[in-house]
Amino acid sequence: MKLNWHRLTVHTKYPFTIARPGASVDGTAVNRIIVELEHDGIVGRGEAAPSPFYNQSLDTVEATLRQVGPLLGDDPYQIGPIVDRLLARFDDQRATVAALDEALHDWVGQRLGVPVWRLLGLNGTDCPPTSMTVGIAELDLIARKTREAAGFHIIKVKVGTPNDEAVLATVRENAPAGCKVRVDANCGWSADEAVDRIQALRPFDLEMIEQPIPPHQYDALRRITQTVGLPIITDEDSCRPADVVKLAGIVTGINIKLSKCGGIRQAFDMIRLARNLGLQVMLGCMVETSVGISAIAQLAPLADYVDLDGHLLLADDPFTGPTLQDGVVAPPDRPGLGIGRA
Amino acid sequence: MKLNWHRLTVHTKYPFTIARPGASVDGTAVNRIIVELEHDGIVGRGEAAPSPFYNQSLDTVEATLRQVGPLLGDDPYQIGPIVDRLLARFDDQRATVAALDEALHDWVGQRLGVPVWRLLGLNGTDCPPTSMTVGIAELDLIARKTREAAGFHIIKVKVGTPNDEAVLATVRENAPAGCKVRVDANCGWSADEAVDRIQALRPFDLEMIEQPIPPHQYDALRRITQTVGLPIITDEDSCRPADVVKLAGIVTGINIKLSKCGGIRQAFDMIRLARNLGLQVMLGCMVETSVGISAIAQLAPLADYVDLDGHLLLADDPFTGPTLQDGVVAPPDRPGLGIGRA
Repeated sequence: MKLNWHRLTVHTKYPFTIARPGASVDGTAVNRIIVELEHDGIVGRGEAAPSPFYNQSLDTVEATLRQVGPLLGDDPYQIGPIVDRLLARFDDQRATVAALDEALHDWVGQRLGVPVWRLLGLNGTDCPPTSMTVGIAELDLIARKTREAAGFHIIKVKVGTPNDEAVLATVRENAPAGCKVRVDANCGWSADEAVDRIQALRPFDLEMIEQPIPPHQYDALRRITQTVGLPIITDEDSCRPADVVKLAGIVTGINIKLSKCGGIRQAFDMIRLARNLGLQVMLGCMVETSVGISAIAQLAPLADYVDLDGHLLLADDPFTGPTLQDGVVAPPDRPGLGIGRA
Repeated sequence: MKLNWHRLTVHTKYPFTIARPGASVDGTAVNRIIVELEHDGIVGRGEAAPSPFYNQSLDTVEATLRQVGPLLGDDPYQIGPIVDRLLARFDDQRATVAALDEALHDWVGQRLGVPVWRLLGLNGTDCPPTSMTVGIAELDLIARKTREAAGFHIIKVKVGTPNDEAVLATVRENAPAGCKVRVDANCGWSADEAVDRIQALRPFDLEMIEQPIPPHQYDALRRITQTVGLPIITDEDSCRPADVVKLAGIVTGINIKLSKCGGIRQAFDMIRLARNLGLQVMLGCMVETSVGISAIAQLAPLADYVDLDGHLLLADDPFTGPTLQDGVVAPPDRPGLGIGRA
């Protein structure tokens, strides 16, 4: 297998801000790394979306990629053993492992002439609607973004500022009737204030709450879940398969992202764990191109909640892949991840 | 999809007896049902090995097969949704669901021209050695069977009679030096006597103990596991994914069989659950033909312990499939399940 990669700068349509310090997109520029695995005349692609919150950066991605050669072997079909070897060595660089896992899946699907969702035994036409995210912003921009999201059935609102009630009032005023509203606090509340903050937002008829408090506070998460009567879905708390086990019986469900867990294979593990441990499944993403979104969209038929709008937030996505129809982001009916050039 | 099936009578080389009443093979005849799913000119095959212990019989298999037509749909790639629909309706007829799951996997692999283990992202050439089973019998027959198993690295001895020490002495006398010996009590001991019985067998240098006591006695299982200092692996206790969750932290590992859980897809779930819940993984089988053994052998690269000798116990297996080399039963490097006619 021949491994290549290149950095890629794309731009969001609007500045993108969330409650967690340091996690905002800098201005509108987003830097990603596209990985290419070539073998026997076929090129599989994947995307690394590193996050400083998980001790990842463009530099750590590239440092990892420079060392993975001997771990890849010469048979791209062997995704299981390859991912196991990569995680054994680079457990903390899962955004990089995800990119390689995606490229391997893309390669196998192209080689066999079928979409990855078919290889996974799924029905790619049976996906729940995605939410469209409205980040933290001034109220007039929130109003405008909400109106632009009119084609979606669900709006996800970033909360965790003193302004949350005004933000949600603006969203509700500008959203179509019947639109669901979910909120994502990105760890923005303390364990002490979370219940009160959520109760204060109840009048806005929320679908669910994502990651109300900073990670690893299981007792507080349990108390919040038992108290508020709304689904509590973790994100920063649910990175890997081992986390799913810890969260069973504590929260309502987990948000799974490929860049957190290490790719499609690990995500599939997390989904099966969640289902068998009584947890709901949400699939999410970073701000990323159609390469990464098409990869996670292959699993969308297995989700209760989908938040796959990362590519839709971009002004200059260089790739095509996922379809968008009536608010549903679905994997394309093309071999592999089905990625093309925009 | 067009569904056909037929009953099949095969014969064991020797009468096959275990400790659990009613579970012995009647004389040497074994009745199985071979399922065939035809679609678009390709025929996928699977095997139903019903067990009265799980309220299954040839009649319940056929009664189930007569009703599954509308649940199969018209796309054999959609194994996930199909198995979900089958289990929602026929949760207690998992031997039948397993046969259909196997046939679907066989179909997809043949259609794409690759072995199922490749579709599962595994390395089919990396399998642990299988044990060869020596059933309950007179000591001279046990001696003969043990000598016939000389090509295997592990012998599995059925225990649970007052005669266990003499049986194991006979096995050790006739087995090659370095041969591992595991024992399977098939629920044959009571919770009170199990620890004493196991301690009495310690001089025979056992690798592990399978299902010492009847199922659903979790406190006793935990106590046995903590006391005896040998791996305790459940079988009759570990039928389905939900059982794996219950057994975490209680025993050392679980024996997974397709006819218990409902096929390759459910078995894969159980394996991933076990791995993430700290349980070892054993793959086992019923007395069955190369159809059923080839199906579970696709997962052998994921196992710690393998006991896939069901087809090797037969005098007249009408099929070919799994390879046997130096005591290792492995899936063939042929499309689908790789089943042929003997």
